[in-house]
Amino acid sequence: MSSAETATADCKQAGAAADSRTFKLTVAYDGTRYAGWQVQPKRETIQAALERAIAQVCRERVRVTGSGRTDSGVHAIGQVASFSLTAWRAGAADLTRALNSKLPADISVRQTEDAVADFHAIRDAIGKRYRYQLRVGGNRDAFDYRYRWHLAGPIDLDAMRQAAAAIRGRQDFASFQAAGSDRKTTVRDIRDLVLSEQDGVGQGEESPGRLLAIEVEADGFLYNMVRNIVGTLVEVGRGKRSPDWVGEVIAARDRRVGGPTAPGHGLCLLSVDYPPEVLLSSSEPSRCE
Amino acid sequence: MSSAETATADCKQAGAAADSRTFKLTVAYDGTRYAGWQVQPKRETIQAALERAIAQVCRERVRVTGSGRTDSGVHAIGQVASFSLTAWRAGAADLTRALNSKLPADISVRQTEDAVADFHAIRDAIGKRYRYQLRVGGNRDAFDYRYRWHLAGPIDLDAMRQAAAAIRGRQDFASFQAAGSDRKTTVRDIRDLVLSEQDGVGQGEESPGRLLAIEVEADGFLYNMVRNIVGTLVEVGRGKRSPDWVGEVIAARDRRVGGPTAPGHGLCLLSVDYPPEVLLSSSEPSRCE
Repeated sequence: MSSAETATADCKQAGAAADSRTFKLTVAYDGTRYAGWQVQPKRETIQAALERAIAQVCRERVRVTGSGRTDSGVHAIGQVASFSLTAWRAGAADLTRALNSKLPADISVRQTEDAVADFHAIRDAIGKRYRYQLRVGGNRDAFDYRYRWHLAGPIDLDAMRQAAAAIRGRQDFASFQAAGSDRKTTVRDIRDLVLSEQDGVGQGEESPGRLLAIEVEADGFLYNMVRNIVGTLVEVGRGKRSPDWVGEVIAARDRRVGGPTAPGHGLCLLSVDYPPEVLLSSSEPSRCE
Repeated sequence: MSSAETATADCKQAGAAADSRTFKLTVAYDGTRYAGWQVQPKRETIQAALERAIAQVCRERVRVTGSGRTDSGVHAIGQVASFSLTAWRAGAADLTRALNSKLPADISVRQTEDAVADFHAIRDAIGKRYRYQLRVGGNRDAFDYRYRWHLAGPIDLDAMRQAAAAIRGRQDFASFQAAGSDRKTTVRDIRDLVLSEQDGVGQGEESPGRLLAIEVEADGFLYNMVRNIVGTLVEVGRGKRSPDWVGEVIAARDRRVGGPTAPGHGLCLLSVDYPPEVLLSSSEPSRCE
């Protein structure tokens, strides 16, 4: 893509009427190389890479707001971010192409859409879905170690499923919030929590062990909430705790009662939901460019 | 795995009878971070990482012989290497575990087997199988860019399949040998060459394009042979050349006639075949530990 020149041509000349345009960006990334989403001094982050790409494409320094800050090593297939530009005059799809031509290969913009002027990726989010991937037993895998927590095993998946029943619905999930967090409310509505066995064999190990996935959807998540849920379910799967214990953990409203925090690299932000009104009605139909 | 101590305990004391044991090692690696297989000054390679791990495990500096030198960025699921140790007294499976505890996460030993004293990974190989992966059209993918050559497309797979027919069998493949190579003979027997469409959607892109794989099996390969075959087939797939052209390329016995060399990161060494006699009959049954 030789969009270096076209990109510049797509930016208004300095002095042109500065009517700001707000965009909704859907972005995928392999978080392995990054110190998480949020800009940090001296460490490379997803947000910093995106802001640099925007500055290169349109000579405009803007702040990009992510729907949430993913931690170091955490991946995303459908992270959403909002930002505004005054100088972009071409279509939103052209902005996707221009940004991808500047971004490193492990970050890819999947879609750029015109949003209403006050669209805000955190405030307007109405739901999120995460997937946590595990590999139980089997050999090490030189390919998928970046995307799975590898446990020695064995794991009792049925016991984990029984335990998971207690985690669904609208409840106070203070026990799954990272210690030291300070949210107004720790009540969240977990709409879906599914444990499944995956059968893909990665890049072809003969003894891959069991590949498990835990998907969780909620109206919102507390800091480290998915990783703490996974760490707690794994305690049950390993037989260290009974399935009933998870109800006690939730009732305690105390992070110290639950299992350990599962490592970040098994986690992937699958999607963030917004009401359709956040998009400009004149926008192209929602599709992946 | 706390095999640091056990590993040392598994090594014979200095001064013990030094009867050498030869091993056949099957190893997988993600080649992204490496300057290929072969030891090089100042650059990290797979061979160097393996030799270092062996030295750490058994305080013995040995040379590891790979079945072939994979290039920078090329991956392997079933590379095979041979080496000899005088100090290892535990089982071959214990060596697998000890080496994996020392190796970086993107290299994994899949199996270690006791081989006959003169087993040599290059000389004894009777066949190899490679897979080359392509992604045609679609978005960039933040996850699988390390493992696929991404082409803008479109690609005519049927034309490529027609062209591939000329590449099978025992022939002089001098046209697919990297310029400057100097092998005794450039005749090789391509036993299998299959082009297929894959349906896995990587890490979930909405517009993944077409995922193609080209698998090639032969009694042996010339330097860059698979990548040159792929680059030549892609010329046909893109409509720049007719399927018949590939027969002319082979007949020319001249590297300058064929298509460009496809990039290394799409290539993966799947397996290397040896006659069963290379393993010690007393060895454990062939399985992946």
